[in-house]
Amino acid sequence: MRNLTLLTDFYELTMMQAYHHAEVTTGRKQTAVFDMFYRENPCGNGYAVVAGLAQVVDYINDLAFYDEDISYLRSTGVFGEEFLAYLKDFKFTGSINAVPEGTVVFPGEPLIQVIAPLMEAQLIETAILNIINHQSLIATKASRVCWAARGDRVLEIGLRRAQGPDAGLYGARAAMIGGCFGTSNVLAGQLFDVPVRGTQAHSWIMSFDSEIEAFRYYSQLYPKYCILLVDTYDTLKSGVPNAIRIFSEMRENGLETYGIRLDSGDLAYLSKRARKMLDDAGFPDAIISASNDLDEYLISELKSQGAQISQWGVGTHLITSKEYPAFGGVYKLASLQSDGGEWQNKIKLSEDPIKVTNPGIKKIFRLYDATSGKMKADLIALSEETLTNTADLTIFDPIATWKQMTLKAHEFTVRELLQPVFENGVCVHPPLTVPQICEYAKAERATLWDEHRRLVRPHIMPVDLSQKLFDLKKAMIEKSRS
Amino acid sequence: MRNLTLLTDFYELTMMQAYHHAEVTTGRKQTAVFDMFYRENPCGNGYAVVAGLAQVVDYINDLAFYDEDISYLRSTGVFGEEFLAYLKDFKFTGSINAVPEGTVVFPGEPLIQVIAPLMEAQLIETAILNIINHQSLIATKASRVCWAARGDRVLEIGLRRAQGPDAGLYGARAAMIGGCFGTSNVLAGQLFDVPVRGTQAHSWIMSFDSEIEAFRYYSQLYPKYCILLVDTYDTLKSGVPNAIRIFSEMRENGLETYGIRLDSGDLAYLSKRARKMLDDAGFPDAIISASNDLDEYLISELKSQGAQISQWGVGTHLITSKEYPAFGGVYKLASLQSDGGEWQNKIKLSEDPIKVTNPGIKKIFRLYDATSGKMKADLIALSEETLTNTADLTIFDPIATWKQMTLKAHEFTVRELLQPVFENGVCVHPPLTVPQICEYAKAERATLWDEHRRLVRPHIMPVDLSQKLFDLKKAMIEKSRS
Repeated sequence: MRNLTLLTDFYELTMMQAYHHAEVTTGRKQTAVFDMFYRENPCGNGYAVVAGLAQVVDYINDLAFYDEDISYLRSTGVFGEEFLAYLKDFKFTGSINAVPEGTVVFPGEPLIQVIAPLMEAQLIETAILNIINHQSLIATKASRVCWAARGDRVLEIGLRRAQGPDAGLYGARAAMIGGCFGTSNVLAGQLFDVPVRGTQAHSWIMSFDSEIEAFRYYSQLYPKYCILLVDTYDTLKSGVPNAIRIFSEMRENGLETYGIRLDSGDLAYLSKRARKMLDDAGFPDAIISASNDLDEYLISELKSQGAQISQWGVGTHLITSKEYPAFGGVYKLASLQSDGGEWQNKIKLSEDPIKVTNPGIKKIFRLYDATSGKMKADLIALSEETLTNTADLTIFDPIATWKQMTLKAHEFTVRELLQPVFENGVCVHPPLTVPQICEYAKAERATLWDEHRRLVRPHIMPVDLSQKLFDLKKAMIEKSRS
Repeated sequence: MRNLTLLTDFYELTMMQAYHHAEVTTGRKQTAVFDMFYRENPCGNGYAVVAGLAQVVDYINDLAFYDEDISYLRSTGVFGEEFLAYLKDFKFTGSINAVPEGTVVFPGEPLIQVIAPLMEAQLIETAILNIINHQSLIATKASRVCWAARGDRVLEIGLRRAQGPDAGLYGARAAMIGGCFGTSNVLAGQLFDVPVRGTQAHSWIMSFDSEIEAFRYYSQLYPKYCILLVDTYDTLKSGVPNAIRIFSEMRENGLETYGIRLDSGDLAYLSKRARKMLDDAGFPDAIISASNDLDEYLISELKSQGAQISQWGVGTHLITSKEYPAFGGVYKLASLQSDGGEWQNKIKLSEDPIKVTNPGIKKIFRLYDATSGKMKADLIALSEETLTNTADLTIFDPIATWKQMTLKAHEFTVRELLQPVFENGVCVHPPLTVPQICEYAKAERATLWDEHRRLVRPHIMPVDLSQKLFDLKKAMIEKSRS
């Protein structure tokens, strides 16, 4: 990975210099707590899948201002030598807690909590948002697409339409975390140890004098994974019959993974006709895969119309989250400490209730039904709070406070979501492989009821505040009013 | 830049191996011409701004399969040693022509033309599409946003919402080519020599005991560029009056670039009220800048309502092209030559006329009005054709052929758009700085009439085919029908 230290907004550096100047001239040392959270699930989904933490860890570990960076900053005429000297030796010394990658999360929850000298916390705002916003967006979209595919394999094939190389690479990573089976992206396969797959392009078929020659050549070279693209000339009159001829030829040596790919035309109609032709010819296990501007809605509709497709290649809509291309995560000050004194909790008010931030240093308790293991609710609390299942617990909606739910003692279980990632500048995060994260993410999604996974107007998971946090927030709002 | 050789779809490599195998076993050597083009302008725009060529050049120059890449490919079990040995020494040996970065372009025109051994041309498809699709998308979006701002400065501030680090970095580059004045992205400033700008975050204001203290501290440290964020507590009751107090204090030492930033609330109302307060206090040259989920439509509406805003910070909508987040460029086979023989032109048919490709090796003539210098039309022709302005020229729409236009001799000028970038593997492209590209792009946009730049339902620029190309295409369609 390239060094991304300057991948930040200019104001982070000008604010940093000002904080540094205050520290040098007045001795004021400030430590801050910032929460990274988001306000709305992408695409009207019932949840999001958080992703990108490993790249945040790499970014923090690699933070360093090199000579050329210092020279560049000097050339802007805005930074003094004292501050530039500080940057030369810069290291992140703070602590970071985070919700593990692949976790199912909800609006308002701190996904990343940064506790660090204010200067340092400010510098890393932009890159943290950039990385987590991007990967969480694509992981969430992938989880929708895979839900629509109802257990069929979904391949991520969007690299050519991704917003630049990283969007293709880390988008593929996030798509895997969201539930995809594999990707067409070779670099993602190499870096993240995930399955890569591919078929042929129309140019392959067109580079031969006939379709059957193109198919035959390919099948002889790739007998173990042979999915033939059948729509270059005429899907039902030419492509499928030619594919069947090839499969008959291949049968002598034993067929392994084989089938066809549809990339145009009406996929419901064509797949049903192709299925019948393949079955009649004795190839009931031939895969029918499909691509062509698919998204979760079209896949869902095609399945409800009985489309005979068992593998879906999803490109543009997945890799850009076309319908909803920005996750909208923000990074807000929650508490501030000057010169090692008392923490001063901070709140950002807004006329819109959803935009009022939660003050203080917080933690998240996730509550599960003890019998089914399904998730019941999340409770955002203050960091000093503890919670066990030894007593009944009544929780309430922080805006519509009359909406309450009581969980009976021992009928629920509790788990804390935020985990330490950095402690005083030292990374304490266990390195996980992408396949490990994918496995965890799959188990996470299984804690949701189907009602929460519906693509349109899903059931909303309660995310409540503890009584203490609720009281603190209320008091701070009232105080600021007067 | 990292090595992006494996940033390709898996099928490019399996097809490559198959072509390589054919060459080794049968001696068949194929050379191909591929066109990269797009079919629809983003956001219903009247044109696109092509960008990303410099990154394509870097990518091609850096193409190399390193030992770890070869090992990875071997580990997939799909590639033979003969092919892996070929990859080890791989170099791009073909030729590439391209429309210069920053050029105004239209659907159907080859923006990049690759003439190379089929294997090589296939490998580079994915990365070329990825890079050009992304940057052309953002450059086009930026050009819309800047058009809406009617000469006001537009700052690109979307890094935190971009789809990963590259999307932020190269998105900022493309936004500059599309007409932005500067970016908040420091790394983009460093790498591309473009202006970086910034103000403060709400956390800056909140880290002080009062708003006025935060403003004063900032103004003392940054007297030369001092834009104060006025909406943390109450824009008109607190923020603007405090900013005026600070400007009065600063006046003693002479004011340079100074003003306020609005980031919430109704920007039309607040900017008009703030303008009056600033003017009444004797600060008529205070900048009023605005941000908060802006796009070209909102800017246009705000301006038509008399908003007193002279600088616009545009984030999410610009950096993701939120309304239309994928450019949709494709890469299609246009001609094929076997063993140094005749070129065989190729066409891809479709039931949708706009999806039928233009066969053959082509060039693009751009036609201008000789008097005004404004663009009249583009003409896609075969590469062997020439065109001068010494005779009248009648051009016609290739689908609605009755739509004709005659350009009188000497009343038009002609320019060819495609320029050589690689010749037989050697880069012949002059390195250009981003500021140079921006200047060229600005001149390019000035060749359009305002009617072509309208944000909604713009006047459509004619992109016609030469008679020869039209006849070739028609003959190939008829032949394939029979």
